[in-house]
This record gives sequence, structure tokens and C-alpha cells, in this order.
Amino acid sequence: MSLARLNKLTAALSAAGLECAVAIAGPNLVYLTGLSFHLSERPSVGFFPAGADPVFVVGRLEESKLREGLPYPARLFTYTDADGPAGAFAQAAQALAGVRRLAVEARRMRVMELRLIEAAFGRPGVDEAEALFAGLRMCKDADELAKMRAAVQIAEHAVLNTLPHVRAGMTEREVASELLVQTLRAGSDADLPFAPIVASGPNGALPHANITDRRLQAGDLVTLDWGAAKDGYVADLTRTYALGAVDPELRRIYELVQAANAAGRAAARPGVTCASVDAAARQAIAAGGYGEYFVHRVGHGLGLEGHEDPSMHGQNQTRLEPGMTFTVEPGIYVPGRGGVRIEDDVVVTADGAESLSSLPRDLQTLPG
Amino acid sequence: MSLARLNKLTAALSAAGLECAVAIAGPNLVYLTGLSFHLSERPSVGFFPAGADPVFVVGRLEESKLREGLPYPARLFTYTDADGPAGAFAQAAQALAGVRRLAVEARRMRVMELRLIEAAFGRPGVDEAEALFAGLRMCKDADELAKMRAAVQIAEHAVLNTLPHVRAGMTEREVASELLVQTLRAGSDADLPFAPIVASGPNGALPHANITDRRLQAGDLVTLDWGAAKDGYVADLTRTYALGAVDPELRRIYELVQAANAAGRAAARPGVTCASVDAAARQAIAAGGYGEYFVHRVGHGLGLEGHEDPSMHGQNQTRLEPGMTFTVEPGIYVPGRGGVRIEDDVVVTADGAESLSSLPRDLQTLPG
Repeated sequence: MSLARLNKLTAALSAAGLECAVAIAGPNLVYLTGLSFHLSERPSVGFFPAGADPVFVVGRLEESKLREGLPYPARLFTYTDADGPAGAFAQAAQALAGVRRLAVEARRMRVMELRLIEAAFGRPGVDEAEALFAGLRMCKDADELAKMRAAVQIAEHAVLNTLPHVRAGMTEREVASELLVQTLRAGSDADLPFAPIVASGPNGALPHANITDRRLQAGDLVTLDWGAAKDGYVADLTRTYALGAVDPELRRIYELVQAANAAGRAAARPGVTCASVDAAARQAIAAGGYGEYFVHRVGHGLGLEGHEDPSMHGQNQTRLEPGMTFTVEPGIYVPGRGGVRIEDDVVVTADGAESLSSLPRDLQTLPG
Repeated sequence: MSLARLNKLTAALSAAGLECAVAIAGPNLVYLTGLSFHLSERPSVGFFPAGADPVFVVGRLEESKLREGLPYPARLFTYTDADGPAGAFAQAAQALAGVRRLAVEARRMRVMELRLIEAAFGRPGVDEAEALFAGLRMCKDADELAKMRAAVQIAEHAVLNTLPHVRAGMTEREVASELLVQTLRAGSDADLPFAPIVASGPNGALPHANITDRRLQAGDLVTLDWGAAKDGYVADLTRTYALGAVDPELRRIYELVQAANAAGRAAARPGVTCASVDAAARQAIAAGGYGEYFVHRVGHGLGLEGHEDPSMHGQNQTRLEPGMTFTVEPGIYVPGRGGVRIEDDVVVTADGAESLSSLPRDLQTLPG
């Protein structure tokens, strides 16, 4: 698996005219090694040159993991806390003598690693590798999709086991805690992509609401946005529920978001742009007069990360390909009143898109 | 609270001869604003100049959080997904006209933010701000200590509620899942500092073991390393348990680690160096003949982050001050045989150090 990915990377490097890709602890390193490194103040860095074996710099504690787990030959330089990493980076640069330009993952690599690399390589050229890595990872293979399906199933079981506990008088925090417990009981990896969001009543008007101690009240809309993970691959779902009867405007908002979610999913197929998926969902909301209240992109890529490429925003002209996976999550947020978001995880198929998630999208009413 | 911290930062900037500190989404921004921003591909950046109001660049979605929650005046520039952040950074640079050098948190800021800042400010001088921020955060105030004590209590309740479930035949993963559930039930924040480590039998020889499906066996030592959080402040504890009777060498290793833990805690007091705490624990293990198997530093700072300053390693000549908080976690790891680690969280007091954690340190035997 990881050897095939290494070969894919080498081909992509050559195609892009790049000499060497660099990844730090995180999903790109997981993707290329099959091993998980902890992002900490101790740098773990993999150098992947186009024409030679990879080179790793890791703390001494990570050495055995790498020696025993790596599925291809590599050169390995380690350091201790007492000595610090500069010497190991210098050895890595020596092992990579001849490499003059490095392509780094700018969204993840920290100034700390950049400075160590610059010192070791003596003012190398630094290129941007995000597109390179995204190109490798955007289209999921069957194994990856199986893990994402499993993650979505875990997330769905979790919410279905949580809803019977939800009632007026509970705090948002209590609902979130129950949802989290049910997510783990349902079999999620312990490393969740994000902590659940529970936004009730007027708090629902904040797309990225922090959880509060507000108590749920009859008449609220309650938005749950939660994730799960299976073998490192993640699910990210949102549903909005009614607590008892809600007023007609909230119900109308719900129906617009439901239509926008359907329109976004229906628009997704090979060859169309990410922007057009965003536009399809946005159009459904704008037609109902709430366009100004849909304040974010329609979705984001999903896989080893909770947010990855492709970004499903209105300027992204990337064309969808089979195997791409992303969220479709339109929302309406009316300040002071509340909000609705309905989020599914979809995969592009040969001739359309399939939702990995199958929870009901009609407004579900919980006892108020 | 955050205004006092802002004043503390301004004083520290002046003392260090720095013009402007820069923090991205993460603990330094939490510390300085009291607000939590999600680290994602959308940068959230705070600029804290020595002689003027702070300047923030955040995505549009974060705007209301900042406008409503910030406890001091600031200038705010936002961007949308469609437009991207470069324009907002340019506006921020304009608002900060005159600032020629920026002090950035190198362990956290990503190449992405660095490049946006470099483009907006036109080749500014870039200084290292880690020491500056660490200087603000290392000594905890009473409010911070209360949160850390609460986090430790949650972590302790969690493990005490987990142990009755642990028995031979369970997998490491099952134990970790139960520990996680109990951590949340005990009242931890949903954002845990790290996922629990459960390392049994020979797996205990890996200090940073990944959880496996290995089943616990009678005669194993089982190491649990788990965290909890309260209002953003974390606990980080480790205990090693015996599953039934263990052989004499494992018991001897345990006793050496127990002595090293006690020696490290006893050595901590105002005025001594971090290195001397490490040395005290190391000496106890070396005296027993296992020095080569204690392969990591004795501990690390703890607070808003699971790993922060001061690093308790053998080269760190930083002198302890009252209010500093860190772990004391010596270990012995014998390849193929197993390992032991005993980790407490301590705070330096006026004349010594107090352990925030009070779980038993004698070897506890669970039914095999």
C-alpha cells in the first residue's frame, strides 16, 4: 500500500518538476508511511526525493516504530531531547546532497521545521507541496472508501443512540458529552476529527458555535455537528432537529437548507467544478430569499483530515473526479433567531455522487 | 483577565526589545484573548504590537466571536473563503504601519501564515517568540491552577472508574475506549490533550506505543497514559498496573521507577534547574542498573498545552519558579519484556513542589 503511494509520489514529483517533497508529522506522513507520528515540539520529518530512498528525521523515541513499520527502504537520522534535532537535520541534508529545492506542505509545516531545514540545507529553494499532496490524496481508493463508510456508520449509530437522551432542560454541553460517549461506544478511533458542536436556539446562528451551558428549550432548533474516525479516516455530519413545535420561519429555513443540500448533492458528478456544486446549493437558498444568511462555502474535502482538498467554494474551478470525497453542508444562520445546517459526506462515482450518509434529512422532531 | 495578560505581554515585548508578537489559532491566542479559534486551513492570526491596539485577521465566520468576546479594543480584518486571506493580511500590515520586525511562535505558526505575513509586510524581520510566550505562561496563577487541579481530579476519577472493568482477555483498544468514556463522564472538556495510551506486556517497552488489539494477559504490566482537560487546562497522568502476579524483574523495574518518580518530585523546588530534576530521577534508575532503558526526559511543562515549557530535560538550565507546572514521568523500557512509567503533574510551591495528582504509586495488582 504505502510503497505504491511512494511510487505515485515519485511520479507526481517528476511530473511537477520538483526534486523532493517534505512532510512533517500528520496526514501526509500517515499516507506515505502507513505510520502515525505525534505532532509535538519534537519534529518528525520525512524527505521524499524523486530519485532516491526517503530520508527521515525523528526523535529517538520514534526510531523503533519507523524501523519496524516502514514498508520500504529509507535512511533514518534520530536525535535526543538533550542534543536537539539540528544535528540530525544536518545529517539528513548530507544524505540528500544534491537536492537544492524542497517542496513543503505549507498548511502544516511549522516555522520551526522550516528553520531547521533552511539551516541544514543552506538556503534551499522552497516550493509549495500542498497541491502535490492533495493530488495524491483527493481520489480515494477502495480501501480508503471502506474506512470512510465505516466512519460514517459509526457517526450515524452515535447520533441515533444519542437522540433518545435529548430533551428540553438539558444543556448543550450535556448533549455534546452524550454524543461523544456514543461515538466512542459505536467504535470510533479515539482521535476524533473535532469535538462535537451542539448549537441550540439563537446559538444556532453561529456556524462555528462554541458549546455553552444553555439549556435546550421547547421550540428550539438544535444543530448537532459531529465526527467519527475509523483507522484514521473521518466522517463529518450535521443534522438540525426540532425540539417540539418550531415556528413557521424556522421550518421554512429548514426546508430551504434541505433543498440546498439535495441540490448540492445532485450537482456533484465527474467533470463539474467544485464551484458549481457550491452554486447549486447557494441558488436554492437565494431563491428562497435567504442568500445573505448562507455565509460559508458549501463544503470541504474529507479523508485523513476533517478538512482537506477539494475546497467546495465558489471560486474553485477544480473539476470533480470519481473517488473524490467531500461534505455538502449548506446552512442558514439568522442572527438572534437560530440556524440550520444539514451536512452529508459524499463520494463522486462514475456518473454522479453517492452520499455515504443516510440519516433522514426531513425535519425530525424530538419531544419538547 | 485577558487585559492583564495583554499588559504583561506588552511589558515583556519592551523588556525583550521586540516590536510585535504574532500568534495563530492555538493556546497563545487563547491565553491572550480568552477566545478559542480552530486551527484549520483558514488562518486566524493575532498581532500584538508593543505600543498600539492588537490587530486580528480571521475568517468571516470568526468575526462575531471576536467582536463580542474580546475584552479590549482591537482592529479586525476578515476574509471570505472565496476571496482568500491575502487582502486581509495586507490591511493588517497597513494598520500596523511602522512595525518592521515580528516575533512569531515558531513551534506553532505554519509556513502558510509565515508566507502571508511576509507578503503583506514586505520582508519583515522575523524573530522567535516562543520564549516570550513561554515566559508569560510558565508560571500559573490561582485561576489556572484551579483548572489544572480540576483536570487532574477528572483524570483520576476516570481511571478509578475504569480499573474495575480491566481484566485479562480485554484488548488494549477496549481498555482505551473505556478510559476515554470514563474521562468524558467524569467531566472532561471534549477537547482532550491526547488520546489514551494503553501499552500491555511487551508493548509497554515502547514509550509512545500505538494502541493495538493485543489482549491483556495475566502476568502483564499494563501502562495507562491518559489526559483530561478542564476549561482548556490539561492533566497528563500515567500509571502502570500489574495484571495478576508479575515476575520479579518487572517488579524490580517498577520499584526503580517508583523511586525515580519520588526523587524527581522531591528535587523540584524554586531555584533548582529543570536539568537537576531530570538528573535526580535518572540517578535513581541508573543506580539500579537500568539507566540505558530510561530513554526520554523526565517530564515536560503542562498547562493550556499537553507539552509546553519548561522542558524537563538534562540540558535545560532554566531555574524553577513558584507556579511552574510540569510532569514528572520517569520510565524504564526493556525491549521484548515490557515497561513501566509513573507520571504525576506537579506545581512548584514557595519551598518545594506539590503533586496535583494523588493516585497510589505503589504497584497495584488487578485480577489476572
